[in-house]
Amino acid sequence: MNGNQPLNLSMLCDFYELTMGNGYWKRGFQDRITYFDVFFRDVPDKGGFAIAAGLEQVVDYIQNLHFAPEDIAYLRGRGIFCEEFLDYLANFHFTGDIYAVPEGTPIFPREPILTVRAPAIQAQLIETYLLLAINHQSLIATKASRVVRAAQGRTVLEFGSRRAQGADGAVLGARAAYIGGCAGTACTISDQLYGVSAGGTMAHSWVQMFDTQLEAFKTYCEIYPDNPVLLVDTYNTLKKGIPDAIRAFNEVLRPRGLTKCGIRLDSGDMTYLTKMARKMLDEAGWQSCKISVSNSLDEYIIQDLLLQGAQIDMFGVGERLITAKSEPVFGGVYKLAAVENDAGEIIPKIKISENVGKITNPHFKKLYRFYGNDTGKAIADYLCVHDETVDDSQDITIFDPETTWKRKRVYNYTARELQVPVFLGGKLVYQLPTLQEIQDYCKKEVDALWDEVKRFDNPHTYYVDLSQKLWDIKYQLLRENSQE
Amino acid sequence: MNGNQPLNLSMLCDFYELTMGNGYWKRGFQDRITYFDVFFRDVPDKGGFAIAAGLEQVVDYIQNLHFAPEDIAYLRGRGIFCEEFLDYLANFHFTGDIYAVPEGTPIFPREPILTVRAPAIQAQLIETYLLLAINHQSLIATKASRVVRAAQGRTVLEFGSRRAQGADGAVLGARAAYIGGCAGTACTISDQLYGVSAGGTMAHSWVQMFDTQLEAFKTYCEIYPDNPVLLVDTYNTLKKGIPDAIRAFNEVLRPRGLTKCGIRLDSGDMTYLTKMARKMLDEAGWQSCKISVSNSLDEYIIQDLLLQGAQIDMFGVGERLITAKSEPVFGGVYKLAAVENDAGEIIPKIKISENVGKITNPHFKKLYRFYGNDTGKAIADYLCVHDETVDDSQDITIFDPETTWKRKRVYNYTARELQVPVFLGGKLVYQLPTLQEIQDYCKKEVDALWDEVKRFDNPHTYYVDLSQKLWDIKYQLLRENSQE
Repeated sequence: MNGNQPLNLSMLCDFYELTMGNGYWKRGFQDRITYFDVFFRDVPDKGGFAIAAGLEQVVDYIQNLHFAPEDIAYLRGRGIFCEEFLDYLANFHFTGDIYAVPEGTPIFPREPILTVRAPAIQAQLIETYLLLAINHQSLIATKASRVVRAAQGRTVLEFGSRRAQGADGAVLGARAAYIGGCAGTACTISDQLYGVSAGGTMAHSWVQMFDTQLEAFKTYCEIYPDNPVLLVDTYNTLKKGIPDAIRAFNEVLRPRGLTKCGIRLDSGDMTYLTKMARKMLDEAGWQSCKISVSNSLDEYIIQDLLLQGAQIDMFGVGERLITAKSEPVFGGVYKLAAVENDAGEIIPKIKISENVGKITNPHFKKLYRFYGNDTGKAIADYLCVHDETVDDSQDITIFDPETTWKRKRVYNYTARELQVPVFLGGKLVYQLPTLQEIQDYCKKEVDALWDEVKRFDNPHTYYVDLSQKLWDIKYQLLRENSQE
Repeated sequence: MNGNQPLNLSMLCDFYELTMGNGYWKRGFQDRITYFDVFFRDVPDKGGFAIAAGLEQVVDYIQNLHFAPEDIAYLRGRGIFCEEFLDYLANFHFTGDIYAVPEGTPIFPREPILTVRAPAIQAQLIETYLLLAINHQSLIATKASRVVRAAQGRTVLEFGSRRAQGADGAVLGARAAYIGGCAGTACTISDQLYGVSAGGTMAHSWVQMFDTQLEAFKTYCEIYPDNPVLLVDTYNTLKKGIPDAIRAFNEVLRPRGLTKCGIRLDSGDMTYLTKMARKMLDEAGWQSCKISVSNSLDEYIIQDLLLQGAQIDMFGVGERLITAKSEPVFGGVYKLAAVENDAGEIIPKIKISENVGKITNPHFKKLYRFYGNDTGKAIADYLCVHDETVDDSQDITIFDPETTWKRKRVYNYTARELQVPVFLGGKLVYQLPTLQEIQDYCKKEVDALWDEVKRFDNPHTYYVDLSQKLWDIKYQLLRENSQE
């Protein structure tokens, strides 16, 4: 934000969280225990699943949650908050519980990615940043997963910092892209802070800076002989760029017995140019030279290029990944699911809407994923009330929560609870995995999905079913509220 | 990023800027003076113009540019940079010149929004962040300008933090939205830091927290009697939401003689519901009650709602503004335009491309805007070489740089240079305007565009012409390079 001053993210809240907080205080609701779920309604790009990400930033945020004297002074200046509430904020820290699915988990619409159990004011104040962190990184991880799958095992690098929506968009976007399967980034600070391997060689300006392109290429090979990647489209790719690159490799690398090198194309018809480039390089004895491309790529263009036989070893994906251009919004929401009454009983709450898709799943819940023991594949997700437990030594019948006559008997399966405790009583109880562990876990869990769920177009809708008990509670609440 | 540690944005560079910088150092190019332009090629959403924004963040960044010991240690660990270059970075600060169009200026494709004159390594290292800052905020300011124009004088508020792409996306996005004409934001910290007026009242959770909606509404009116805005769609807008709101206003505001209040709708058919709401409120004597709506709005939906006679006083625009959802990338680029030789002569440079649109305008340039003295309207922009001067007491003939037979004689006009010096010799020489001044200036300059340029669909293409001298230099360079 500003090179000198860290941003106090606690102030990155929607103003209504403060007006409500002050209201809860005045009404004596500040200690009322509330349960909020983070969930989303639609998979971006009409895909079959999304990838959860952003939890590490949520943990950082919760641990640093505080209002500094200048924040209190600003709020006092607004003239609508009572002093008791401002005192409360001045001494504010998070004392609640947070449960969440680990980063890298494939997630589906309407299931709780993260659940907060906390006093009302606390739970309300963290709404915006929790959503922002999870929405942003889940968006990019999901998009990256698509792009990486399109590349069919070829390397995908994240190249989009300059087109990102702000500094965090770039830095954390590169992190999320890595979770989704990218092998690295162009963004230096993402490597420094998060260990997302950063690399990069030259821009057109390097080539322009020299009197001739050949001199630019030879100089680069001399300085970085280990794996020089030369940008060949500054003037004319086939007539000048590739011939100059071959000459530079011949004159600088060959005498030293070095073979590792590459070229990069950033414009033109990638199928035609890479086929020609491969031929020219091979004929010149540079079979070892890798070809990278980087010009407004996304999963569909990559799929098309490979279908047409383009000769590409590595994709640098920029603006369409770092902004998830085709659908740049991950619509995670934060909705009240229950409150505790004075006796400590959990009272489920529902939000009804004229848009049916906006009706919430009430109550404090548990989320299971069932894996077939024979295939290792994920069969269905299962939402039940917090006090229910699935015994996977027993068969279970699940049913579609909307068309309830659609039933499925599940047997020989393993049930895994997807949410893990992250904070309990305000204390961090979760060991954050490394970024590499998250990427590996993501790959494993995506591999556990059937191909039908992973298709780009018209994917199979994965089952997310409710237990009979949860379904009964939901429809009881729906009936009660629509009778009013 | 992290609540404890400010991000050193100097490390937010593409790694190739460092490999090139090290290369320039080794080659003795570090003091070679280079000229780089920031420009863009296409207006988002096929609009007629964009709005420049992000300069204040560029200024912050340049003033804080430095590499800390931990940054140098990280770079050393990469094992490819020479110690002399690392020493250079450790003592690095910006010594160059930056010229830029002020924030809020309407801008057009291929004209330099910002120009850097600096030693090669310096100019190269600032590429990513300069682009990122200008691309991001120009994107959002441009989108906001569209949304605000669609609202035809009604208030537009920015509501999108939770769907922003990272914290800066939210905080600086709200700033950029204000430049484009929004009246305020929901994002508290954008108010605190930048003075973007923040407001907000209640979420659905406030309503759910009480035993009845009426109690929730009455409590809110009691706590905030000055201008309570009640969210009326938690259960059923027409059957419960508006009747409860009217009752709360009647029971709490009316006895005190208060009339300022509002309702907000967040779901359902906005045209139908707001017409009904207006009728119900008016019949109950609440003509003073303002109606706000906020559900996946953008300029086209707003235009449609107003066309259909929806009764709306205020629009809260979320995800589609804060991410510029319809086209979430502003494609600003940073291209070498010239270098100085040892004698200090400026040698123009061009980048040719197989994509014709990617060919650059070479040389160190000046950018003028011509305004008709009779109408006050902008007629054309004019790019010339840095040593040319337009004398607007004389008529001038301008011509289309592609179809050069299209000529236009301009007379009775005022020529204004659009770029202003921001840094000279590394020193800030520009007085940053306040955000309010930027918004006012933006409005004035957008008003100076003809309506034909401001249309959403098929806008008139505004003239951006080259001087004869600049055109001659460009085509000379094109010929030279394509002969090679």
